[in-house]
Amino acid sequence: MKNTGDQQLVKRINRSLILRLLRKPAALQTGLSRAQLAKASGLTKSTVSLLVLDLLQEGWLMEGDLSNEASRGRPSTPLRMDTTRKALIGVEVAVDSVRVVGVSLIGSVLCTRNEPLTNASPSDACKQVAKMTAGVHKDLLKRGMQLHGVGVGVPGAFDTATGRLSFAPNLGWRDIDFVPLITKAFARTGMPAVPVFVQNEADTSALSEYEFANNNANDSLIFVTCGVGVGAGIVLNDRLFTGVQGMAGEIGHSILQIGGAQCSCGRRGCAETFFGERVLSKMDDPSMGGKYLGLVLHNLWTTFNPGTLVVGGSSCVRYPSMVDVASKALAAYANSAGITPAPKVRTASYGILAAAVGAAALVLHQEQLFFK
Amino acid sequence: MKNTGDQQLVKRINRSLILRLLRKPAALQTGLSRAQLAKASGLTKSTVSLLVLDLLQEGWLMEGDLSNEASRGRPSTPLRMDTTRKALIGVEVAVDSVRVVGVSLIGSVLCTRNEPLTNASPSDACKQVAKMTAGVHKDLLKRGMQLHGVGVGVPGAFDTATGRLSFAPNLGWRDIDFVPLITKAFARTGMPAVPVFVQNEADTSALSEYEFANNNANDSLIFVTCGVGVGAGIVLNDRLFTGVQGMAGEIGHSILQIGGAQCSCGRRGCAETFFGERVLSKMDDPSMGGKYLGLVLHNLWTTFNPGTLVVGGSSCVRYPSMVDVASKALAAYANSAGITPAPKVRTASYGILAAAVGAAALVLHQEQLFFK
Repeated sequence: MKNTGDQQLVKRINRSLILRLLRKPAALQTGLSRAQLAKASGLTKSTVSLLVLDLLQEGWLMEGDLSNEASRGRPSTPLRMDTTRKALIGVEVAVDSVRVVGVSLIGSVLCTRNEPLTNASPSDACKQVAKMTAGVHKDLLKRGMQLHGVGVGVPGAFDTATGRLSFAPNLGWRDIDFVPLITKAFARTGMPAVPVFVQNEADTSALSEYEFANNNANDSLIFVTCGVGVGAGIVLNDRLFTGVQGMAGEIGHSILQIGGAQCSCGRRGCAETFFGERVLSKMDDPSMGGKYLGLVLHNLWTTFNPGTLVVGGSSCVRYPSMVDVASKALAAYANSAGITPAPKVRTASYGILAAAVGAAALVLHQEQLFFK
Repeated sequence: MKNTGDQQLVKRINRSLILRLLRKPAALQTGLSRAQLAKASGLTKSTVSLLVLDLLQEGWLMEGDLSNEASRGRPSTPLRMDTTRKALIGVEVAVDSVRVVGVSLIGSVLCTRNEPLTNASPSDACKQVAKMTAGVHKDLLKRGMQLHGVGVGVPGAFDTATGRLSFAPNLGWRDIDFVPLITKAFARTGMPAVPVFVQNEADTSALSEYEFANNNANDSLIFVTCGVGVGAGIVLNDRLFTGVQGMAGEIGHSILQIGGAQCSCGRRGCAETFFGERVLSKMDDPSMGGKYLGLVLHNLWTTFNPGTLVVGGSSCVRYPSMVDVASKALAAYANSAGITPAPKVRTASYGILAAAVGAAALVLHQEQLFFK
């Protein structure tokens, strides 16, 4: 019944479980002892000790200060996520700008770079991204930190099955074999050959919350990003959900009105024609776009019954009153039905950096297994 | 690193994997040999042989005819799902009727009972369900089959976290501790104490397709049921997705028009006000409700990017032209955008029995693990 494959899988699951437990908000504060990890994971103490030894050596964990724990009469060494040795880099390729962040394993932003996108051709964009990323990598090296992986958020549909960026309308990109392109650009700068992950920027935004700011493995989370494009990143059952072709969450093109205004996608009456940034900028009172954002949030609620709804993106930063209008509309719908209160809507913890920080979170998300 | 819990989990995963492989459409036709199962599962031949021995003894599998395989020069015994020993019962408690079906492990309908719901109080409804179910159980015994489990589909939100039926508006049920109620009613009829599973009827409908008619573990599937109520059953990453309170898929109450017609839920402009059965029955041309069903299908497409969209429920049986109108509307939206063709919309394989057959499928779905 047993074979090496089983053992490797079980080890990987157990490592993920320990890291997941230590990344929960409470554990970030106080740490957990080996005994507490054993109790919370259901693993034996000897299994936990062996795994922790590896994780300490590799730079994932650090041993905390004894004093706090000792004062409670139980001298045991608390383990914590190590925020000083391994670092992640997250990149957001936006329609008109590039943001690169260096973050710790628990999502603390260590350094950032932000430049206008100088040329939107895929190869030129990758060159610019690589140059900026190499700069952030140097900043991390100065801190004595080792780069563990790079995540890239892109404004289009990324198909994880084929590894191709199928469509990024606002950049004019179509069916780009993006991973080799960006990996080669990184290599040319002399950066170390670390794992590189790519995903849609609404999806990475959702991971900024899920992995670094919410981190509740029993929860589902939807992040609605409002900018030139409108989209949703969806985390269900502890995993990013992207659909069969990577196009799930394209709620900017859900239709709110049959025969409505012409949308850039060719359809009429899409959500983007009601509160896309280009439409909002022409409105006398852009906050009224929130009426339609509220409708979209309501329909996401009835469809997904999510634990958490987060809104972000440049429009929410620029027009914060739009979010208030949307929240009130959602609460009014919930009130009319009177069954359960509407889920709380909160704004992005990382503000305008959500997509870039979330791209860094993507590295952890893709490397870690977690079976509930 | 190893302990009994790990071994049990690995065994359960491997059993599920073998059953899943043998339930794929191609395997239902020709069966798979132990060597083919080993190759497809990645398990060793000795592991497969041990697991198959258990599954044969328990009545899950049967050994097929040698002749076909032998004619290809490779004498090996094909294994198949056993359709003669174990049976499942599925129940649909609808708003005004009760349907009970006995089905084989591969979803062949063996016997059915259908009665109007005589009294909608939870305890009376459970008594009627138990009496009908005991009748179907007798039919199965006459066939020499052993009951493995019972699934029940209900027209409301079932919260798997608490095991309670939180809300079934059209029956007037609210916060019912349904599982003990129905289990006791079954026991009083003298039925054997088999596992009982409960779920929303749109969810069970989705499982009738996913477990018995589609059965593609790499796929996601959405089943939109149109009757007095409108709802969706959602299968993602090989699992039914029901949301944090079991209310996911309540798309009948997604809002299609701000300030639209009053809905029974208290909100205005919900999907049910456009193509709920009570509204359709008053329309000169009910097929035109398909225009709005098409809009809902489109928005599910952009939101989930599902592999398969299925429509069913009593309205689709009564007004088949509504489905044509909806399919054409969806195709027209996809055509306007021109990125990818719309997913094919098909009608329920089990017609009006979808929710009941799917309730039987729920038993297999809940008992089987499958990690991709």
